[in-house]
Amino acid sequence: MNRQWLLASRPQGMVSPENFEWREADVPEPGEGQALVRNLYLSLDPAMRGWMSDAPSYVPPVGIGEVMRGGCVARVERSNDPELAEGSLVAGMFGWQDYALTGGEGPLRPSRIPDGVEPALALGALGMTALTAYWGLAEIGKPQPGETVVVSAAAGATGSVVGQIAKIRGCRVIGIAGGPEKCALLTGELGFDGAIDYRSEKVAARLRELCPDGIDVYWDNVGGEILEAALANLAMHARIVICGAISQYNAETPPGGPRNYMNLLVKRSRMEGFLVFDYAARNGEALAELVPWVTEGKVRQPADVRDGLENAPAALLDLFEGRNSGKLMVRIAS
Amino acid sequence: MNRQWLLASRPQGMVSPENFEWREADVPEPGEGQALVRNLYLSLDPAMRGWMSDAPSYVPPVGIGEVMRGGCVARVERSNDPELAEGSLVAGMFGWQDYALTGGEGPLRPSRIPDGVEPALALGALGMTALTAYWGLAEIGKPQPGETVVVSAAAGATGSVVGQIAKIRGCRVIGIAGGPEKCALLTGELGFDGAIDYRSEKVAARLRELCPDGIDVYWDNVGGEILEAALANLAMHARIVICGAISQYNAETPPGGPRNYMNLLVKRSRMEGFLVFDYAARNGEALAELVPWVTEGKVRQPADVRDGLENAPAALLDLFEGRNSGKLMVRIAS
Repeated sequence: MNRQWLLASRPQGMVSPENFEWREADVPEPGEGQALVRNLYLSLDPAMRGWMSDAPSYVPPVGIGEVMRGGCVARVERSNDPELAEGSLVAGMFGWQDYALTGGEGPLRPSRIPDGVEPALALGALGMTALTAYWGLAEIGKPQPGETVVVSAAAGATGSVVGQIAKIRGCRVIGIAGGPEKCALLTGELGFDGAIDYRSEKVAARLRELCPDGIDVYWDNVGGEILEAALANLAMHARIVICGAISQYNAETPPGGPRNYMNLLVKRSRMEGFLVFDYAARNGEALAELVPWVTEGKVRQPADVRDGLENAPAALLDLFEGRNSGKLMVRIAS
Repeated sequence: MNRQWLLASRPQGMVSPENFEWREADVPEPGEGQALVRNLYLSLDPAMRGWMSDAPSYVPPVGIGEVMRGGCVARVERSNDPELAEGSLVAGMFGWQDYALTGGEGPLRPSRIPDGVEPALALGALGMTALTAYWGLAEIGKPQPGETVVVSAAAGATGSVVGQIAKIRGCRVIGIAGGPEKCALLTGELGFDGAIDYRSEKVAARLRELCPDGIDVYWDNVGGEILEAALANLAMHARIVICGAISQYNAETPPGGPRNYMNLLVKRSRMEGFLVFDYAARNGEALAELVPWVTEGKVRQPADVRDGLENAPAALLDLFEGRNSGKLMVRIAS
């Protein structure tokens, strides 16, 4: 039996468990060139909110009645694909279900997980969010030693890796997160130089204190007022990496844009968006740096693992309400 | 006698002639290393609205009771500066007055006007706004042959030169301007490939029609809804050059930011601000291209010349209400 979560309706405002429908289907048969995979872990990511909406974006929306899209780590059960050996571990967009068939190409082609890498790690510090951090810094943020890097949603899956890579690159790193536990994680285990609790502190004023020479690289996962606070504190020739806007995804009214974007002119700065999928062909380069960093403990990623595919919708709501700490994933099978 | 316009008060919302005060002062004496210049033409520019405000910006505001700041072309009357010969023509920030003393350094240092260049041209197609167009394209927009370039405030001093340089660079160029006369100027004398009248047409829909492959370079002089219309029609890897936001300068309520800035991510695009002053040391390079273009008629600039220093405040209001066509300047003396 193949347990599945389908997209039942498009959310109005905040996602709700009622946007999903549970179905028990047959396990599919792999066709020529395909493999059948058994999902072990499902990654929960902010981008899922966009995939549930039918606004134009970088990928088509998930259709109503289709299996909800999601990145997974899986084990190959049966294979008609000579490159996917039975029993091996693979990562791919296999969706919110027990079993899936492979077959996508390009960025959708499953990638083999190197021997010895824990399945959960392949969704975390070596997964898509870590690659997002790696490529966004390498290609857009370009932090130089001695520069000040500020990261929003810094305790999250992408932000935590952004900050740790920026530390490795010789930068001063300030993280913005919600609540004292997350802030303690940043300045403790993750080695950030400072943390701002956006729930209890005034972000713009604290950025002014903590970044007296201004922000050289601002990594934006959130949008809204925190993006404006960063824009108000740029150094000259700053780079703003647009990675996400989680504060806006569930807004019922059209969200506001950054009212002070003209600081880009005052500070001769840039704001630039990117997508990790564009760098898929070069992920070997990224992993050549990330794997030793993870092995040596220079990049750590707290994982927040929830048990059971049936709990995926509730876990997604926790993600948007900030009730996760570190990389959020659902264990589907062991 | 030195007739002067002083800044009397900071505007609330739209600038008003009442923000200025007329004074008749003595002609000053040049000190050691200084020259006394006689202003011939005063340039009127959107940036003046920012200089009148005390919001933090890239230059300090004009103080209340100080002579209003402005770029001028002037003749050297008496000189204690060996580099500024009496009788020669110079351009500089000499202010809204008949006479000024030189003395500034860096970008404020007066620049000599090459022999044979008409004084009005030194404020127009070879002046600061033309250099703004040149450097913003060269360093930020980087248009490639065959790309589509869209310019807002395209009949204005900067926009008209942006479009003509982009044509020289082999691009398809669409201009956005207010009213049928300005649009006819763009597609007629200035050689643009298309024009959109924002007063009578739906800009986003027209951009979709005229730029079916998307906008590669968008030059923003205006902000507001036109910036959003451009963001909604970007090609992949587009560059938005942030040069100004004239639609917002006189807003009484805090202006909105571009609500759809996340299209920067969807289209892997960037939005970047710059200031022409940063390139002052390299203006020789720019003029080496601009002078022949102007001489050969490849870059034309309609000038809108108003007579008399006493009319400067009214002319500035015309600028913000779109009642100029081409480079707006005031003739102070001949």
